[in-house]
Amino acid sequence: MNIPKTSLPRVVIIGGGFAGISLARQLANKELQVVLLDRHNYHTFQPLLYQVSTGGLEPDSIAYPIRKVLTDFPNFHFRLAHVDEIIPEKNTVHADIGKLKYDYLIVATGSKTNFFGNKQIEKYAMPMKTVPESLNLRSMILENFEQALLTSDINERNALMNFVIVGGGPTGVELAGALAEIKKGILPKDYPDLDIRQMQINLVQGGNRLLDVMSENASKKAEEFLQKLGVNIWKGSHITDYDGFEAKTNSELCFETATLIWAAGVMGNVPKGLDGKDLIAKGNRVKVNEFSQVIGYDNIFAIGDMAVMQSEEFPNGHPMMVQAAMQQGFAVGDNLVRKIKGNPMKPFVYKNKGSMATIGRNKAVVDLPKIRFQGVFAWFVWMYIHLYYLIGFRNRMVVFINWVYNYIRFDREARLIIRPFKKNRTLVEVE
Amino acid sequence: MNIPKTSLPRVVIIGGGFAGISLARQLANKELQVVLLDRHNYHTFQPLLYQVSTGGLEPDSIAYPIRKVLTDFPNFHFRLAHVDEIIPEKNTVHADIGKLKYDYLIVATGSKTNFFGNKQIEKYAMPMKTVPESLNLRSMILENFEQALLTSDINERNALMNFVIVGGGPTGVELAGALAEIKKGILPKDYPDLDIRQMQINLVQGGNRLLDVMSENASKKAEEFLQKLGVNIWKGSHITDYDGFEAKTNSELCFETATLIWAAGVMGNVPKGLDGKDLIAKGNRVKVNEFSQVIGYDNIFAIGDMAVMQSEEFPNGHPMMVQAAMQQGFAVGDNLVRKIKGNPMKPFVYKNKGSMATIGRNKAVVDLPKIRFQGVFAWFVWMYIHLYYLIGFRNRMVVFINWVYNYIRFDREARLIIRPFKKNRTLVEVE
Repeated sequence: MNIPKTSLPRVVIIGGGFAGISLARQLANKELQVVLLDRHNYHTFQPLLYQVSTGGLEPDSIAYPIRKVLTDFPNFHFRLAHVDEIIPEKNTVHADIGKLKYDYLIVATGSKTNFFGNKQIEKYAMPMKTVPESLNLRSMILENFEQALLTSDINERNALMNFVIVGGGPTGVELAGALAEIKKGILPKDYPDLDIRQMQINLVQGGNRLLDVMSENASKKAEEFLQKLGVNIWKGSHITDYDGFEAKTNSELCFETATLIWAAGVMGNVPKGLDGKDLIAKGNRVKVNEFSQVIGYDNIFAIGDMAVMQSEEFPNGHPMMVQAAMQQGFAVGDNLVRKIKGNPMKPFVYKNKGSMATIGRNKAVVDLPKIRFQGVFAWFVWMYIHLYYLIGFRNRMVVFINWVYNYIRFDREARLIIRPFKKNRTLVEVE
Repeated sequence: MNIPKTSLPRVVIIGGGFAGISLARQLANKELQVVLLDRHNYHTFQPLLYQVSTGGLEPDSIAYPIRKVLTDFPNFHFRLAHVDEIIPEKNTVHADIGKLKYDYLIVATGSKTNFFGNKQIEKYAMPMKTVPESLNLRSMILENFEQALLTSDINERNALMNFVIVGGGPTGVELAGALAEIKKGILPKDYPDLDIRQMQINLVQGGNRLLDVMSENASKKAEEFLQKLGVNIWKGSHITDYDGFEAKTNSELCFETATLIWAAGVMGNVPKGLDGKDLIAKGNRVKVNEFSQVIGYDNIFAIGDMAVMQSEEFPNGHPMMVQAAMQQGFAVGDNLVRKIKGNPMKPFVYKNKGSMATIGRNKAVVDLPKIRFQGVFAWFVWMYIHLYYLIGFRNRMVVFINWVYNYIRFDREARLIIRPFKKNRTLVEVE
């Protein structure tokens, strides 16, 4: 990988998500050599991917070049790489671009879409975990309407205009709200030849309430907001099969839909070498101790979505959310410095800063540790917090302008089919 | 295509570029049914594609949804379609989405990259005529540096850092300037492990001066500006062959380069059915009369880059530039209305509004009909004109903010490898 050999201890970080970037920032000016590996050259602000899918934001404004995060730090090295395997006995990472020895390894490979082993669903459903996936979804939604215009087969047209979102967590709820806004404000103007009232937005949730990581009150309000926007909510339902047209559920309920968006769950994205049975807990996450060290290893840490720190308070680990990832990144940064200096490490203490979700225009639900609120004010808080955590001044400006514009004009101008998505799920070559 | 049948005359426009959009706008509120076909659902502001390729602008801010251009006009219909053939005898257009009868047809299919029949160059060189092509180029430029970091083979590293731009027209000149700015301001910070001084930017021009559509003075200044920025200019040179590594020329000059960017020429993009030998002039453009009617047809018009209106003043037709395309679009719009009302059409008169090119930061050359100037003021004029012609308020705002940011911070944050381009010229599937 052509990383210079120095006398400094080498810290290798795999993954430039919230956990990895927070950690790297913490280590930037320390007496360490830091190597960050990621399969993308950018950090993705995942909480806003649904706005890319629905044409509200440009993909480039929620992505940030990783190299720029740690420019100016001479001991920091980034490599665009896909990690194949970790060999703990040899303190080595194997990647597509070569091997690398480490003194300390921090795995922050995040999570991936969990299809619960259903290959049919994996083949036909649309995930939304990365920028390219969001762009594919954007293209698909728009192409569906272009195609709906052309068909005189009512069943086909209905299926093209029937959207099924699986999963009632924040992603599913926010996406459903955004689709409902498009249905109201944009599609009737863009497609005067179509009867947009026939567009259906279905949100399918396995449990008995939406946003089950939030308070009962937030769930209730979110449901109310979505229903007002015309979203059909199906609770206690699981999608059991999907062939690209018909989605079956655990009950008699059945959807004829060309678009099944899968936001039903994620699982730890664990690299080979750390995936031993004894290491893996529920949700395919790697077990770590209170210092984020992978159980059984002294110099391998795991942070963010792919790690699970089980405790009495959190028997299934911390929530797979941005704030836990960032806090773990910062904590491991501090602990590494302590450890290298020979000082004892401090156990990780999670500080719940609350959670929130937005449901279309002017509406959001916010649970803070001491206060819960919903509605317009919550919506402003939601926007402020998202702008605050977005990396980069330019990104903030561009996102802000888009939001103001979209708000005032009831519009979303990034409704562009830039990389055509075709039904066979392959990308079309550049013309 | 499911276009409603009405008693109004049906005007079919193929192509949503500057010519087609200008025409459609002109016809929007007339007593006509207008059908616009394009293979993309967006209009592309081609003059700024080079800024997308070099990470200065987001692709979404130079694209504009075609449907939005003519929303609110009930007799306007857009269809996402690829036209296969025109059958003039039957007044029919054949597209991948079906057939369509027309009363009047306006072909505005623009131009495509001209490789002058060289299949090897076509296979390995990078064109830059569409948004996806610009994004591919952006990814390739960035991946080259990521790869240059990894290799210890000097020849390979040099080839990865050696950029050859073929064609000294506005596209080639502007791209060379932008690459030179990146070399100066961004790459040394992003790639501290590489010696960026070894990056070469070569601009290869067949003729004996750059910007040969502009004044001698503009050419001289542009050359001076580029040389100051460290661009190597090779005049009187043609690339004769390229295998992905070695680019041969008509002389002993030879480049070892991983990136050959082809801006050496365009040719009319003429659909089947209008490509008869007697209809085609130099540059693969369709011959039209002074009313933009395709020679021999009363109800078929051709406008923009793909049409050639030969006259004494313009023996090779008007320049293949935005302003000619727009003027022809407006003129044909007016003439169609006249014709349908039974009034005589007016011959097209081209009004040269000047031309311009920017060369990196603070520098541009501008030829207006009555005045020519170069330097900082020209650069501001260039920016103003480009913002003015960009469609959409949001696009203007976002482009403006990016420019201000890039200017103040010497930065270009859209340096993202969003759709990985791999050396075999195929797009990688979404991970």
